[in-house]
Amino acid sequence: AARKIMLAMHPAEIADALESLPPVQRRVLWNISDPEIDGEILMEVGDEVRESLVRDMDLEELVAATEQLDLDDLADFVQSLPEQLTAEVLAGMGRQDRERLEQVLAFPEDSAGGLMNMDVITVRGDVTLDVVLRYLRRRGEMPKQTDRLWVVDRYGRYLGELSLRLLLTHSTDTLVSDISLRRIEPLLAHTTQREVARTFEDFDLVSAPVVDDNNRLIGRITIDDVVDVIREEAEQSVMSMAGLNKEDDIFAPIFKSSRKRALWLGVNLLTALLASWVIAQFEGTLERVVTLAVLMSVVPSMGGIAGSQTLTLVIRGQALNQINKNNLRDLLTREVAIGLLNGVLWAVIMAALVWLWFGDKQIGMIIGAALIVNLVTAAYAGAMLPMIMKRLGIDPALAGGVALTTITDVVGLVAFLGLATLIL
Amino acid sequence: AARKIMLAMHPAEIADALESLPPVQRRVLWNISDPEIDGEILMEVGDEVRESLVRDMDLEELVAATEQLDLDDLADFVQSLPEQLTAEVLAGMGRQDRERLEQVLAFPEDSAGGLMNMDVITVRGDVTLDVVLRYLRRRGEMPKQTDRLWVVDRYGRYLGELSLRLLLTHSTDTLVSDISLRRIEPLLAHTTQREVARTFEDFDLVSAPVVDDNNRLIGRITIDDVVDVIREEAEQSVMSMAGLNKEDDIFAPIFKSSRKRALWLGVNLLTALLASWVIAQFEGTLERVVTLAVLMSVVPSMGGIAGSQTLTLVIRGQALNQINKNNLRDLLTREVAIGLLNGVLWAVIMAALVWLWFGDKQIGMIIGAALIVNLVTAAYAGAMLPMIMKRLGIDPALAGGVALTTITDVVGLVAFLGLATLIL
Ligand SMILES: [Mg+2]
Ligand SMILES: [Mg+2]
Ligand SMILES: [Mg+2]
Ligand SMILES: [Mg+2]
Ligand SMILES: [Mg+2]
Ligand SMILES: [Mg+2]
Ligand SMILES: [Mg+2]
Ligand SMILES: [Mg+2]
Ligand SMILES: [Mg+2]
Ligand SMILES: [Mg+2]
Ligand SMILES: [Mg+2]
Ligand SMILES: [Mg+2]
Ligand SMILES: [Mg+2]
Repeated sequence: AARKIMLAMHPAEIADALESLPPVQRRVLWNISDPEIDGEILMEVGDEVRESLVRDMDLEELVAATEQLDLDDLADFVQSLPEQLTAEVLAGMGRQDRERLEQVLAFPEDSAGGLMNMDVITVRGDVTLDVVLRYLRRRGEMPKQTDRLWVVDRYGRYLGELSLRLLLTHSTDTLVSDISLRRIEPLLAHTTQREVARTFEDFDLVSAPVVDDNNRLIGRITIDDVVDVIREEAEQSVMSMAGLNKEDDIFAPIFKSSRKRALWLGVNLLTALLASWVIAQFEGTLERVVTLAVLMSVVPSMGGIAGSQTLTLVIRGQALNQINKNNLRDLLTREVAIGLLNGVLWAVIMAALVWLWFGDKQIGMIIGAALIVNLVTAAYAGAMLPMIMKRLGIDPALAGGVALTTITDVVGLVAFLGLATLIL
Repeated sequence: AARKIMLAMHPAEIADALESLPPVQRRVLWNISDPEIDGEILMEVGDEVRESLVRDMDLEELVAATEQLDLDDLADFVQSLPEQLTAEVLAGMGRQDRERLEQVLAFPEDSAGGLMNMDVITVRGDVTLDVVLRYLRRRGEMPKQTDRLWVVDRYGRYLGELSLRLLLTHSTDTLVSDISLRRIEPLLAHTTQREVARTFEDFDLVSAPVVDDNNRLIGRITIDDVVDVIREEAEQSVMSMAGLNKEDDIFAPIFKSSRKRALWLGVNLLTALLASWVIAQFEGTLERVVTLAVLMSVVPSMGGIAGSQTLTLVIRGQALNQINKNNLRDLLTREVAIGLLNGVLWAVIMAALVWLWFGDKQIGMIIGAALIVNLVTAAYAGAMLPMIMKRLGIDPALAGGVALTTITDVVGLVAFLGLATLIL
């Protein structure tokens, strides 16, 4: 029965099911899955789940699985295998396939070259649509997501595109060159996948040509793979904010997961200890006025919240190319102004609350002043950190939050306890 | 010169430029932009930026802008206008356009019906490909992202699809019904946009049919709009974690932005005050042992970090349909086990550090025990909160973080200061 349901399921759906199963049931499901689509299923699961599945396959099954894959997926698949297996799988492949694969493997996985397939259908500009139509019918089978053909010269250099829409609506004696267009520039093989995704989004593309440095057409990228890139980049940015990786298996062995997460906890412990050390510098003051201990976490915490709003906004602005040298100053001024306004607002509220709660006007004023200082600092840090990190090649989504709260913790505590030490 | 550059730019690029400009320069750019593409530009900017641009347009310009829009975009556009303007713009439109628009407006913006266009090309199953080819050529102009035609019966009921790929590669005397397929079920108009996006991703679609409850074909959805949905949902989830909205203008008036952000700070202040209140309950202990004040932020902070890892994982699992009743128990056990392991690990490390730093074995043991309690609680809360919130209809991406840190703050402080009060 389970087998019957499986046969009606699409590889992407089976992949989701596998990802959501604990190890034992996962193995059962994997063993009854149709070997015909094992390759496609493997491409739909995360890296860590894939590892756990591949471990149950022998070389023969692996080679069989690779035979179902498009070149772009094959390249990703081979790159995700343990090194030993990679060599064996490559050796098990046909020679022509291997040579094509090596061409794609020459490009970084996250470049246009790594995303492309070589399944291009090319035509020449000096023939009529009638010739093209007869050629297509003789050729048979067109690859999926073919919405246009590519026009090249005799040396294979990219000239333009002929969309199927135009091919089907113009009279058959039209010359290809009369209706072919060059609506967008072809993608260079070393274009990053992020730029590729932006081009597809901005121009609403279904497929796009990839050329080498000599403008020779070497492949094409299709929207289904671009959708995967967009989804993956979005997920990775959410996951890395919590120090996680989107490729992680939610049912990986407990020890393995614990070790990975321990790292992130360790990094954060360092910042917590730094805060403790700062507090320790004011032990004398705290001993005298224990109310300060009760209130001291408010200022760092408000700074962390306000700062992370600015941080999130700026990281997103970077990803959308909304932030550049020209508007950085405007943005910074604006964020600091917002920090100042909210600082003053909450300073007044907190001062009043503390006065009511503890009947102490002085501590109220101190916490208010510290809030203003910290919210302005938070805005400034939230805006500058991503810019600095980007320049240093650090991912702000991963490290921005920790760095920011370290700053807002230290500044908040020093402002609050420092002012208290001076005044009280 | 600026005008010339603008003419070479695509609406999506101009939209990005507008979004990244402060108000004054934005208005300048908007005034020199080509009225021919104003509508498309308006569809590419966020809601708040759109408002700021629409404010500079008179009714005539608005109506002209709507004329360039596809039905789906037009529906979004009209819905985003101030109510007064909506009525005026509708009145300015032609009758047929208005009637079609009202059909789309009848569906929620985030449903298949709200995403669809009515630009379907239908064919009957009992004709030959030759007839279809001649029909297309007579018809002229096909809508963008047309990768397949829809096969319907005489009542307009959906029967299947005829892809252009098959149309172009099969012999012209083939009957449509011989090669048309029904690869996926048509989308019902009230399907949510999230499900629509999943269907497109899983089946690598370029376009999909939308039917009403009687299986009558009423429109089609295209991948370019699905890509926008995927991007928007991803962005919204990152933004809402910081209490922001993806539609916000990074150069909105400072007072407006301050007010929006103040709300989030206020919510978080409440949780900070709750923590302060908890600490106040242990004032006596803190007065006796000031070391506790130095260390007390470590336990809540580690709990917050560990909990947010579980929370992020579970929220993502929900979005991917990876989590269900069957595996919730497994997942919970696993997360709690990881919390326990990391709790023990960091308990030992912290106990040793505190012993070294303050030469106090007892406080070291207390902080270690509190860490274990809090990391286990954090794992449990991180896994359960999104499940509960989903059932209550609350967005876990927005409220999960605050709720979680409230719990880890309170539990962490009570565990640490409570144990200390009992023991010291
Ligand atoms: Mg999946
Ligand atoms: Mg199998
Ligand atoms: Mg690849
Ligand atoms: Mg687009
Ligand atoms: Mg592919
Ligand atoms: Mg794919
Ligand atoms: Mg944009
Ligand atoms: Mg204009
Ligand atoms: Mg929108
Ligand atoms: Mg819509
Ligand atoms: Mg897909
Ligand atoms: Mg559209
Ligand atoms: Mg669109």
